[in-house]
Amino acid sequence: MADGLNFSRRLRRTPYTASAEAAGVTGFSVVNHMLLPKAYGRPVEEDYWHLREHVQIWDVACQRQVQIAGRDAARLVQWMTPRDISRARTGDCLYVPITDETGGMINDPVLLKLADDRFWLSAADSDLLLFAKGLALGCGLDVTVDEPDVSPLAVQGPKAETLLCDLFGGHVREIGFFKFDWVDFTGTRQLIARSGYSRQGGFEIYLNGGRLGAALWDAVCQAGQPYGIAPGYPNLIDRIEGGILSYGNEMTREQNPFEIGMGKFCSLNGAVDYLGRNALQKFSENGAERQIRGVLFDGGPCPTCAEPWPVNVGDRQVGQITSAIWSPRLRRNVGLSLIDREFWDAGQPVTVHSKDGATRAGEISALPFA
Amino acid sequence: MADGLNFSRRLRRTPYTASAEAAGVTGFSVVNHMLLPKAYGRPVEEDYWHLREHVQIWDVACQRQVQIAGRDAARLVQWMTPRDISRARTGDCLYVPITDETGGMINDPVLLKLADDRFWLSAADSDLLLFAKGLALGCGLDVTVDEPDVSPLAVQGPKAETLLCDLFGGHVREIGFFKFDWVDFTGTRQLIARSGYSRQGGFEIYLNGGRLGAALWDAVCQAGQPYGIAPGYPNLIDRIEGGILSYGNEMTREQNPFEIGMGKFCSLNGAVDYLGRNALQKFSENGAERQIRGVLFDGGPCPTCAEPWPVNVGDRQVGQITSAIWSPRLRRNVGLSLIDREFWDAGQPVTVHSKDGATRAGEISALPFA
Repeated sequence: MADGLNFSRRLRRTPYTASAEAAGVTGFSVVNHMLLPKAYGRPVEEDYWHLREHVQIWDVACQRQVQIAGRDAARLVQWMTPRDISRARTGDCLYVPITDETGGMINDPVLLKLADDRFWLSAADSDLLLFAKGLALGCGLDVTVDEPDVSPLAVQGPKAETLLCDLFGGHVREIGFFKFDWVDFTGTRQLIARSGYSRQGGFEIYLNGGRLGAALWDAVCQAGQPYGIAPGYPNLIDRIEGGILSYGNEMTREQNPFEIGMGKFCSLNGAVDYLGRNALQKFSENGAERQIRGVLFDGGPCPTCAEPWPVNVGDRQVGQITSAIWSPRLRRNVGLSLIDREFWDAGQPVTVHSKDGATRAGEISALPFA
Repeated sequence: MADGLNFSRRLRRTPYTASAEAAGVTGFSVVNHMLLPKAYGRPVEEDYWHLREHVQIWDVACQRQVQIAGRDAARLVQWMTPRDISRARTGDCLYVPITDETGGMINDPVLLKLADDRFWLSAADSDLLLFAKGLALGCGLDVTVDEPDVSPLAVQGPKAETLLCDLFGGHVREIGFFKFDWVDFTGTRQLIARSGYSRQGGFEIYLNGGRLGAALWDAVCQAGQPYGIAPGYPNLIDRIEGGILSYGNEMTREQNPFEIGMGKFCSLNGAVDYLGRNALQKFSENGAERQIRGVLFDGGPCPTCAEPWPVNVGDRQVGQITSAIWSPRLRRNVGLSLIDREFWDAGQPVTVHSKDGATRAGEISALPFA
């Protein structure tokens, strides 16, 4: 499927959209009311191999920051997430589930601790800002909740580190995984984190000041010339192979953290209080009834998975694939699916019922895929 | 601009998407994480004339319902909106601003009162559900907030009433403007309102039960054959001519209700309490500094307005156009813009600076356009 996207101001352009257009962007998705480039006129397989070997520049400004600041900032953040943030230090990035009172997933952002009283939640595709604002207003907390003019630009792939050391200096190499530090860009202080929505390594520059978007894009591209840099985007093959989940695809408010591999982030010893603690304690005691798994399946490249595909064992539906694509490396289709407990062991034979009417044989795989 | 949209489950299909595809949909927008058909392979002008003369079927399932139910339901709804809802009756639809504590617009839904303790907010493009949920949890209100399986299908145009009387019975004719009643569809009870996102009149069927989507689409199309029914969508020409605003385009959290013509819905006499009352009272005393207006401008059909275009008087920027299109009826371009107070009188000459580099002469117009 590849129909047209009708543009309007409501689907916000980013500080990098004009650069992406100049670089030949041909397809978008929409995340957080903002354009996310998803194609540059090449097959996704080609972009996948390039990402694994070289370095790419991605416009991921749609990862909007929900800034929570003020005296009660840490209290509000802790109330929203089951993950114990009490020992987080300034400079830490934490992948955190955000849940409601039923334990249902509201978002799965990366939390950046900027100071004891200032946090960014780098949000997936739901208006986390409105949830935080509602909670703060309802509770009368002393915080401000807003969306700063901050637009992440990802530099991903094995050559990202060397490129960024060339551009910003060798201290970039010292930044640990899921840590951030600061660099100078044309006289401005910018946050850079070793993070990103791929498993090929890399960094995200949280550009503060949209007016600098084109300059940053150009500077990264210029520094990347020796490394064969190309424009890219969160690559579906790499994402699925890596078992990296997507809010709205693999999880909605219907899922709890235990189902999607985030149980390890849930504090259950009573040390911290948060929304949904009672619900999550109950889920934990009962054990998850389904969990996210990989599915490897046959039958040549599958179509785009735009709605859930049933995964069956015999006549019984045991799950539904929510993202799937052909892996040119594994030479099979790979998909992500919640799978019922009795059937989630690796190797379990299943059938996949894609919407083109085909029935494809497959089996359950651990995540990430090999 | 007409680039591709990359599909995924996260951009939810509706109960009508398959029918829209069968009818030849060629372009989409994304609203509330859901697909909104926006083109059927014909020029928008052709669809515009057809809408004015005949009847169209629109998949507007993306108008998601935020259901607020329970003992404190009315209290929560009133807290969210400056509009006094105390005299609303079951069967009423009310266009309501939703504001935060600063008076900034969070959404501009249609409120449907289903019972004294049950409301739907038919939401524009922001996660109003998360705001309502946050407020309810923060305040400890006795309500449930959820998204029911309800998917509006619009039947718009001058022949909509006759068509729907044929299909559901003559009592449809008795439904007043912005009122709703109930009809039977294949043994199910369905809500139908005289409302819609056009100024050509019509109805919206709030289909409860997505499994019935294809059957309802087909029934409407069959009943519409004698009236020349065609698939359509919220038509940008009709919308702008009618001065109908779009959340995310003409307003964001940066706007207050007085700027966008919703001051008349703000209760300021102290009779009701709501979020943002203090802020709105202050805005009201000071008078709006800018207000929404029409702009008529020259220079042949303008390009798609995907980011705000400056509106100038001489060298001074006095506003920005957020939606614009060529009107084949007025034979000029029409646009919507917030305009500074000193320049908002009808007839004020302005220049429009569209992103194609053109400078176009124009003037301010009252809304709706003639």
